[in-house]
Amino acid sequence: MNMNKGKLIGIGVGPGDPELLTVKAVKTLESVPVICSPKSSPKKPSVALSIVQGILDGRSDEYNVIEPLFPMIEDKNALESYWAGAAELIISELDEGQNVSFITLGDPAIYSTFSYVARIIGDRGYLVEMIPGINSFTGCAASAGITLGEKDEIILVVPKVDQRLGEILEHADTAVVMKTSRHSHMLEEIVKQDPRDKEILSVQNCGMEDEEIFDGFARNGKYLSTTIIKFKKLENK
Amino acid sequence: MNMNKGKLIGIGVGPGDPELLTVKAVKTLESVPVICSPKSSPKKPSVALSIVQGILDGRSDEYNVIEPLFPMIEDKNALESYWAGAAELIISELDEGQNVSFITLGDPAIYSTFSYVARIIGDRGYLVEMIPGINSFTGCAASAGITLGEKDEIILVVPKVDQRLGEILEHADTAVVMKTSRHSHMLEEIVKQDPRDKEILSVQNCGMEDEEIFDGFARNGKYLSTTIIKFKKLENK
Repeated sequence: MNMNKGKLIGIGVGPGDPELLTVKAVKTLESVPVICSPKSSPKKPSVALSIVQGILDGRSDEYNVIEPLFPMIEDKNALESYWAGAAELIISELDEGQNVSFITLGDPAIYSTFSYVARIIGDRGYLVEMIPGINSFTGCAASAGITLGEKDEIILVVPKVDQRLGEILEHADTAVVMKTSRHSHMLEEIVKQDPRDKEILSVQNCGMEDEEIFDGFARNGKYLSTTIIKFKKLENK
Repeated sequence: MNMNKGKLIGIGVGPGDPELLTVKAVKTLESVPVICSPKSSPKKPSVALSIVQGILDGRSDEYNVIEPLFPMIEDKNALESYWAGAAELIISELDEGQNVSFITLGDPAIYSTFSYVARIIGDRGYLVEMIPGINSFTGCAASAGITLGEKDEIILVVPKVDQRLGEILEHADTAVVMKTSRHSHMLEEIVKQDPRDKEILSVQNCGMEDEEIFDGFARNGKYLSTTIIKFKKLENK
């Protein structure tokens, strides 16, 4: 471990409402010298950064914000070169002894780009820590006033709609499907095959000012859409 | 909706570290007139209450703590009568126009006793809200420095060890199994059947002073034990 080097701290900033940050996340963001906030496009503001902007605005000391580009592409080689580039940017700060907080929507352990960058940096011998965040699906459940699991119910979390859902849905009591709006038709078809009664709802932009909750599926293509399907137990005949 | 009545607010207090409460939870606990903190035994202190005690100690105003008994029993009828009793206790406060915060370990939507009491109270026409909390498994992942899901990986969350696991494990990339220590031998047998390579770790008393992280399974019987199994993809032959 490089003892005179800074450490990388992955911070989950929760689904959208700045009040859903943890006390630990707020304290860290009030004092860390460098904030790394990836953005998906040079033209679009970072959602994670907008969530913590109020905390940063309250600081009277100097701090740096670095915003590496992480485009939403599927090409694995291209993605890896973006991650490596972000890692180099962060490492140059760590080498100067600066701690760097990498902010990420939701929780850093759940489908976060943080993990790819953290692996590169951890493998190079730097200290990496994580501060957990409210993940989108518990945020959605709270907004919608429903539970995700009770008693011995099994919860399934799937990051996107694909054909594997057909094989696994029958084993779940609750299915959380993230980023559903782009393939909501496929999701509907798969869910329809399950003979159980079900309660379906979707939450878009959870915790944000334009949060919307729908009965059923989300069809309008917004990126931050999560669908929760609660299956009722089949009665024994 | 009874407009002059108080509302019930389910608050997830996270896995153990008081700094993992959200800002919203702290603000609410600093001002709410009644805190409901169920305890599993008259002799044992409530874990959830101990997590928020520091916040309550900082208050200069008057507040009430009510501690209904929710024993850890399996008898459904007996349990329902405990829930109904707790609901009455809370309703008597709501009827006096007092808001009541029901504190619960982790998140109120994930295997929380809050849900049973909230249903009774909601059905009686009172307003019920939820403030999400850091759930134990993202807390465990952060403590252990691992991710739960990356890319298109499927996460399975199971509240306790039972035979259903055998049918469903093969569909998961990551399995989170809660309260594992009482049946860790059964869990080991089931996991062994899966031909994939795997990384297994267990976290006990996550976020608390006596937190412990084990390689493999937890065998010492502590209640707050979570085991995380990450499966490696089988190579195509």
